[in-house]
Amino acid sequence: MENFNFQCGTNIIFGKDSELTVGQEVKKVANKVLLVYGGQSAKKSGLIERITQSLKAKGIEWVEISGVQPNPRLSLVKEGIALCRQEAIQFILAVGGGSAIDTAKGIALGVPYQGDVWDFYIGKATPQSAIGVGVVLTIPAAGSESSIFTVVSNEEECLKIGYGSELIRPVFAIMNPELSYSIPKYHVAAGSTDIMMHTLERYFTNATDVDLTDRLCEGLLKTMLEEVPRAMEEPTNYAARAEIMWAGSLSHNGLMDTGRIGDFASHEIEHELGAIYDIIHGAGLAVIFPAWCKYVYQHDVARFVQFAVRVMNVEQDYQKPEETALAGIRRLEEFFVRIGMPTRLSQLEIGDDRWEEMADKCTGNDSRTVGSFVPLRKVDILNIFALCK
Amino acid sequence: MENFNFQCGTNIIFGKDSELTVGQEVKKVANKVLLVYGGQSAKKSGLIERITQSLKAKGIEWVEISGVQPNPRLSLVKEGIALCRQEAIQFILAVGGGSAIDTAKGIALGVPYQGDVWDFYIGKATPQSAIGVGVVLTIPAAGSESSIFTVVSNEEECLKIGYGSELIRPVFAIMNPELSYSIPKYHVAAGSTDIMMHTLERYFTNATDVDLTDRLCEGLLKTMLEEVPRAMEEPTNYAARAEIMWAGSLSHNGLMDTGRIGDFASHEIEHELGAIYDIIHGAGLAVIFPAWCKYVYQHDVARFVQFAVRVMNVEQDYQKPEETALAGIRRLEEFFVRIGMPTRLSQLEIGDDRWEEMADKCTGNDSRTVGSFVPLRKVDILNIFALCK
Repeated sequence: MENFNFQCGTNIIFGKDSELTVGQEVKKVANKVLLVYGGQSAKKSGLIERITQSLKAKGIEWVEISGVQPNPRLSLVKEGIALCRQEAIQFILAVGGGSAIDTAKGIALGVPYQGDVWDFYIGKATPQSAIGVGVVLTIPAAGSESSIFTVVSNEEECLKIGYGSELIRPVFAIMNPELSYSIPKYHVAAGSTDIMMHTLERYFTNATDVDLTDRLCEGLLKTMLEEVPRAMEEPTNYAARAEIMWAGSLSHNGLMDTGRIGDFASHEIEHELGAIYDIIHGAGLAVIFPAWCKYVYQHDVARFVQFAVRVMNVEQDYQKPEETALAGIRRLEEFFVRIGMPTRLSQLEIGDDRWEEMADKCTGNDSRTVGSFVPLRKVDILNIFALCK
Repeated sequence: MENFNFQCGTNIIFGKDSELTVGQEVKKVANKVLLVYGGQSAKKSGLIERITQSLKAKGIEWVEISGVQPNPRLSLVKEGIALCRQEAIQFILAVGGGSAIDTAKGIALGVPYQGDVWDFYIGKATPQSAIGVGVVLTIPAAGSESSIFTVVSNEEECLKIGYGSELIRPVFAIMNPELSYSIPKYHVAAGSTDIMMHTLERYFTNATDVDLTDRLCEGLLKTMLEEVPRAMEEPTNYAARAEIMWAGSLSHNGLMDTGRIGDFASHEIEHELGAIYDIIHGAGLAVIFPAWCKYVYQHDVARFVQFAVRVMNVEQDYQKPEETALAGIRRLEEFFVRIGMPTRLSQLEIGDDRWEEMADKCTGNDSRTVGSFVPLRKVDILNIFALCK
C-alpha cells in the first residue's frame, strides 16, 4: 500500500427534496452568488425556480450565467470570471452535472488570479487561492460534485485538459436522485460509464497490498452493473437512481485510490477524442477502455482475472488464466453494448485520419508517456485506436 | 435508501513515517497543545520523543497529560479540561488509540463549557463549540481518529456512555501502520473485532435499497477476515497492518451508514459490561454480537443469508435459508474464537448476578428500547445474556 493523503470535506446533503436546503447552505458562506447552469431543462423543470426561491428566502442575491455545454468551454469560464469580478461575487453555485460544476470550478480558480486561467490547466501556473463552489447535482457522472477536478475544453486550440486541486473541492453538494429522472437514456448510460471508469482507472494499478480498496472498487462496480440497466428501464426508480448518484461521488472523491496509484490513460486518450470531435465523454470512454484492456492485460493477468471473477462474475478457468481475463473484458464490453454505448470509433463516426494528431497531442509528440499501469507511448495509443476502430 | 448527510473533513495522513509531519499539521491550527496519551509504551518506544521533537521543530509548546486507560475515565477528562483552561490551550493532540482520542474529545467539549462535561454524555446539554483535536493513531480499533464519537466511563456511577458531534471530529489523523506493530496479540484481536463491529452494527439495518453500502460493508468485512489473522501471525507485516488501520477509519467515519440506519444494540449492551467489569471493549462485543445475531436473525433471514454467503463464504442452501443464516453466524463466532476472542460471558468471568442491573441501565428500567434492527426491551437483553452466558 502506498502512503496517501485523504480528505473529503464536501458536505453531502443527499436525498429527496434536498435542493430545498440550498439557500440555507449558501447562507453559511455567502450573501451573493453566481448561478451557473446549462440551459432549458433545468429552467423548464422548475428546478432553477425552486433554487432561486430558496436563495431569495435567505436574502441571497444571485447573478446567472447559463448555456453550459458538454465538454465545457473555456470561453464561458472566462465570461464567468469577468462577471464575478464585475459583481464582486465570492461564491459560485453550480446546478447540473460535470460540465456546470467544472465550469464553476474554472471560474473559481480564475477570479483571484491575475493571469489567464488556462495557465493552470497547461501547468504554466499553480493557483494560490480560489473562491468557493457549491453544487446542486442533477446528472450523476463526472463525480465533480465532491472531487478536486475540473476539465475544460479550449475550443480555439482543440484542447481538453483536466486540472485538480483541493482549492476547488466543492463546499457542499446537494444530491436529490429525483432530479436525475429526466436524463435521456443515452446520457444515463454515458454518465454511468464515466462513473464506472473513475473506479476502473484506479482499479488497474501496480500498487500491491490494496485488498481493501480493491474490494471497495469491486463493490461499487457490481452495484453499477446491477443498477444502471434498472435505472434505464425504470427512469423513476428512486433506489436505482440513488445508488448511481452516490456511486458517482464515491467513485471520484479520492476514496477509491487511497493507497494506490490510478492509471487514467483511457481518460487522457478520450480527452483527445472529445477535444476534436466533441463527443459525449462516457461514450468515448466505452470505446477506448475495452481496447486498452485488450492491449495491456498481459502486463498483469492475475489482476484481470480478479476483475473477471469478482466483478464480471466469470467462472474462473484455473488452467487458463488468460481466457478468464479476456472473458472479463468481453463481458464488460457486452455490458457497454447492452446499455447502448458505442464500443467502436466508427460508431462515433471517427475515422483514422486524425489518429496521429491525437496520439501526438496526448503524448506531447511522443515526449512523455500516458498512464501508470502500463505507461503508453504514441505507438501504443495508435495500436489502441486500431483495436477499437 | 434513507436521506443522509455525510461529511468527513478529517485530513488523513497515512503511511510510513507520517508521524514526522505532526509538527507541521499542528502548526496550521495552534502554537500550544495538550498532549494526551496512555503511558509507558508510547514513551518507551520513542514515539512521544519523536512527536515532541517534531512539535519543538515548529516552535509549538506542549503540556502533557498521560495515564489514559482503556474505558477512559471521566476523571481524567476533567483533569484535562482544568489543565487546558489553566494553560490557555486551544488544541489537543491525542497519541494512541480510542481511549486517548475519546479522552481528548471529552476535554475538547468541556473546555468552552461552563457546566459539567458529563452533561453532554447524559443528554442534559448540547455543546455549542469545542476546541480542536488532532490524532497520531497507534491502535486501530475505535475508529475515533476520524469519527464524531467519544465514549467515556464515569467510574463513580459505573456508567459508560457515548456521545457524537461533528464538533469533535478530528482535524487531522496521522496513521502510520508501523506504530501498530507492537500491540499485543489479544489487543489486535479485540481492536479488530471493534472495527468489524462498527460495520456489522450498520450492516444489519431495516433500510432497503442500500446495495452500494451493503457491498462496501461486505468488502471491508472480508478484508478484515483475511488480514487480522495475518497481522496476528506476522506482527510486522506492513500490508496487513495498513489494511486493518485504514479499515478502522472507514468503518466508523460515517461512510458505511450513508443511506441506512445502524443498529448498535450490541455496542450499547457491551457498554454496560464495560462500565461494571472494565473488560476490553472488543472482547465484550465478540461475546454479545453472535448471541444478538442468534436472537434476532429471524427478523430478516434474507439479510443474514446475504451476510453468510457474501461475507462468511457459506455455500447457500437454497431450500433452507435459515440453515444458511445460522451457518453464517456460526462462522463469525468461529472466527472470533480463532483470533482468541471470548464468545461467552463466563470467559470474561461475568456471572449472571448483575444481568438485571445491566439490562435495567441499558433500557432505562425498561422505559426505552435499544437498537433499531430489532428494538430490544429489557427481557430481550436478558435473553441475549442467556445465549452467551
